[in-house]
Amino acid sequence: MIRVTRRYVFSASHRLHAAGLPEEENRRLYGKCNNPFGHGHNYVLEVSVWGPVEARSGRAVDPAALDQLVRERVLSAFDHKNLNEEIEQFRRVVPTTENLSLLIHERLKQGWSSAFPARWPELEKVSIAETERNIFEVSE
Amino acid sequence: MIRVTRRYVFSASHRLHAAGLPEEENRRLYGKCNNPFGHGHNYVLEVSVWGPVEARSGRAVDPAALDQLVRERVLSAFDHKNLNEEIEQFRRVVPTTENLSLLIHERLKQGWSSAFPARWPELEKVSIAETERNIFEVSE
Amino acid sequence: MIRVTRRYVFSASHRLHAAGLPEEENRRLYGKCNNPFGHGHNYVLEVSVWGPVEARSGRAVDPAALDQLVRERVLSAFDHKNLNEEIEQFRRVVPTTENLSLLIHERLKQGWSSAFPARWPELEKVSIAETERNIFEVSE
Amino acid sequence: MIRVTRRYVFSASHRLHAAGLPEEENRRLYGKCNNPFGHGHNYVLEVSVWGPVEARSGRAVDPAALDQLVRERVLSAFDHKNLNEEIEQFRRVVPTTENLSLLIHERLKQGWSSAFPARWPELEKVSIAETERNIFEVSE
Amino acid sequence: MIRVTRRYVFSASHRLHAAGLPEEENRRLYGKCNNPFGHGHNYVLEVSVWGPVEARSGRAVDPAALDQLVRERVLSAFDHKNLNEEIEQFRRVVPTTENLSLLIHERLKQGWSSAFPARWPELEKVSIAETERNIFEVSE
Amino acid sequence: MIRVTRRYVFSASHRLHAAGLPEEENRRLYGKCNNPFGHGHNYVLEVSVWGPVEARSGRAVDPAALDQLVRERVLSAFDHKNLNEEIEQFRRVVPTTENLSLLIHERLKQGWSSAFPARWPELEKVSIAETERNIFEVSE
Repeated sequence: MIRVTRRYVFSASHRLHAAGLPEEENRRLYGKCNNPFGHGHNYVLEVSVWGPVEARSGRAVDPAALDQLVRERVLSAFDHKNLNEEIEQFRRVVPTTENLSLLIHERLKQGWSSAFPARWPELEKVSIAETERNIFEVSE
Repeated sequence: MIRVTRRYVFSASHRLHAAGLPEEENRRLYGKCNNPFGHGHNYVLEVSVWGPVEARSGRAVDPAALDQLVRERVLSAFDHKNLNEEIEQFRRVVPTTENLSLLIHERLKQGWSSAFPARWPELEKVSIAETERNIFEVSE
Repeated sequence: MIRVTRRYVFSASHRLHAAGLPEEENRRLYGKCNNPFGHGHNYVLEVSVWGPVEARSGRAVDPAALDQLVRERVLSAFDHKNLNEEIEQFRRVVPTTENLSLLIHERLKQGWSSAFPARWPELEKVSIAETERNIFEVSE
Repeated sequence: MIRVTRRYVFSASHRLHAAGLPEEENRRLYGKCNNPFGHGHNYVLEVSVWGPVEARSGRAVDPAALDQLVRERVLSAFDHKNLNEEIEQFRRVVPTTENLSLLIHERLKQGWSSAFPARWPELEKVSIAETERNIFEVSE
Repeated sequence: MIRVTRRYVFSASHRLHAAGLPEEENRRLYGKCNNPFGHGHNYVLEVSVWGPVEARSGRAVDPAALDQLVRERVLSAFDHKNLNEEIEQFRRVVPTTENLSLLIHERLKQGWSSAFPARWPELEKVSIAETERNIFEVSE
Repeated sequence: MIRVTRRYVFSASHRLHAAGLPEEENRRLYGKCNNPFGHGHNYVLEVSVWGPVEARSGRAVDPAALDQLVRERVLSAFDHKNLNEEIEQFRRVVPTTENLSLLIHERLKQGWSSAFPARWPELEKVSIAETERNIFEVSE
């Protein structure tokens, strides 16, 4: 069994503001990230899969299939986008990188069985670095 | 003579759109960066100064004075901001990273002589990496 | 459940020398690190926490609370310090990065419940890179 | 208990081609990596070990012993080599980085007990980054 | 005037061997790089251009035009290739990274005026990092 | 003509304190770096040389000769050392990274003509990153 991780980069903007909280609490909780005009990041996404190495091909995952899934389900939706305005789910929930990680994990799960119809590889982890000093990970 | 470079990071959002150009030309010229809702980046700013090493202190620049100048003239204005909406100059010109570099260079020049009243150090270069793969530099 | 990691940097000096071992064994065991005058490093510290995402705020950890805990318990004690001379515990034990990691983990544990009075987040891991090629991790 | 990771770099060339598959399938499966003349990479190898910190030395692993093992079993065999032509096992199996990771893990296991005759440290993980965007890990 | 640098990555294999020198001198001069079976690297290429910022677009260079030139003249020829076997010039000269840098600079010059028919931007520098510790630069 | 840069790393400790200045001024000028017990860094040294590519070897510099010079003149003197206590010059001048850069440049110049008896390559630049955010360069 082996773990394979592939890295992708996308750029997006967001504003952190919880509709159910008073202004003052929003400012305290999110600091500069609460700025009403928004700001943005280069997000570094790492997708880790887990599985056996197929004897014939020497591969644990077809990288082209994984790249296509990530492109279709994640990059096309999030790259060079405004998360608050253009992602349906972030009308209801705050686009923190915690929630962004959970959403990307969920989107990859939804497309997983059609991209990888065999039992392997399994999706093991989604990791997002918002900046070099801030990393978020969702595991199975 | 020695060159000293200090690195700073800020996050901001922008949209690339030239008011004087037709929609189609805007889309061709700026691609995904023309998205009307905007997107964002972690900008890595490097400020390079140039000067002799002062014998007594062994320093070519007082790092606290440079940090204060950068904080007051640049970071407080640009960090966690929407460049199009919150920076006066970017109402008239497109907030490409070329124009952002020129503007940051100009702001540092304006504050230079009060931050560094002696002849040295001189401001030598402003460099901005919009992403790891895209770097912009303005030199004297 | 999500894991959140935040990165911090501090600079310190140390000398590796085990009081209970003969000189020759100290030189063999620690090599250049046994130099009696000491040397130093930029240590890169990563603190990982683990917990559920709070629905209202979209956060698994209040980053300001974590930063304050790390600043008070770790950075104020270790940054720009001589580990052998200025850290009480390193009078008795050798300041290897193994022991430094264990000590930082212990200090964060001691302050954890007052910084995070709710059940979550939990402290999951402390990681220190002494150089890019040398990484030490303590997990729960 | 603590985990210690040490990083090594080596450069090698390879060609991905499965003898048992038709040409067309080889081209589809390996893309540019199927080029008959081969190509190459700077491989970044990380070896992670796991064990208690010895009280007297403050060490979980003797870094000189680990470096010697990695040098003898891995770097001397793979650095500045053609994997297909010069590594016996890659005459039979495709030198994907999956198989390279498994082989390096196996070689370290074979030499482990003579390099580390005590119970600790244990070999925990071998990780290879083929490029910054492609990482492969084998754990116990 | 502004400098813009864009980064590209390609992987290739090579063998360093000067046909006009005796075997022993080849081994001394190139060390492990003289291995007859070859080895390889991930080469990081940076292309720097220099020019004024066009007022209307806020751009010093059309990034799509530069990317297309680099793709056509450099990446399609060198990526996932064996430099000795597949690059005409490296049948006559040794494929050191010095010579590789000069060749890439020459190829970009040849295509420059059709890619950029206006006076600006000018090609200013080609830089290649063979590894993180080995960088080669050709300037105008 | 081509520029070749090679990177080296060393770890050292220092204390910044100007003997000719009052205590208060020392504390203001050097901040945490004035701590009497010292602290330390991983210094990243880059040495750049400049010269023509020799036709026969395809090389602008013999990397083994440069490495030997840097090892003998710089690394053996500075690596895992206390700059204040073990470097003669830093008894008289403050071991700021400005002064360290000038000293390393001077040491390389002194050994240059015996390491490189031909006219080329020339020493062009010495660069030291004290941390990722602090870089110092001395050019000819």
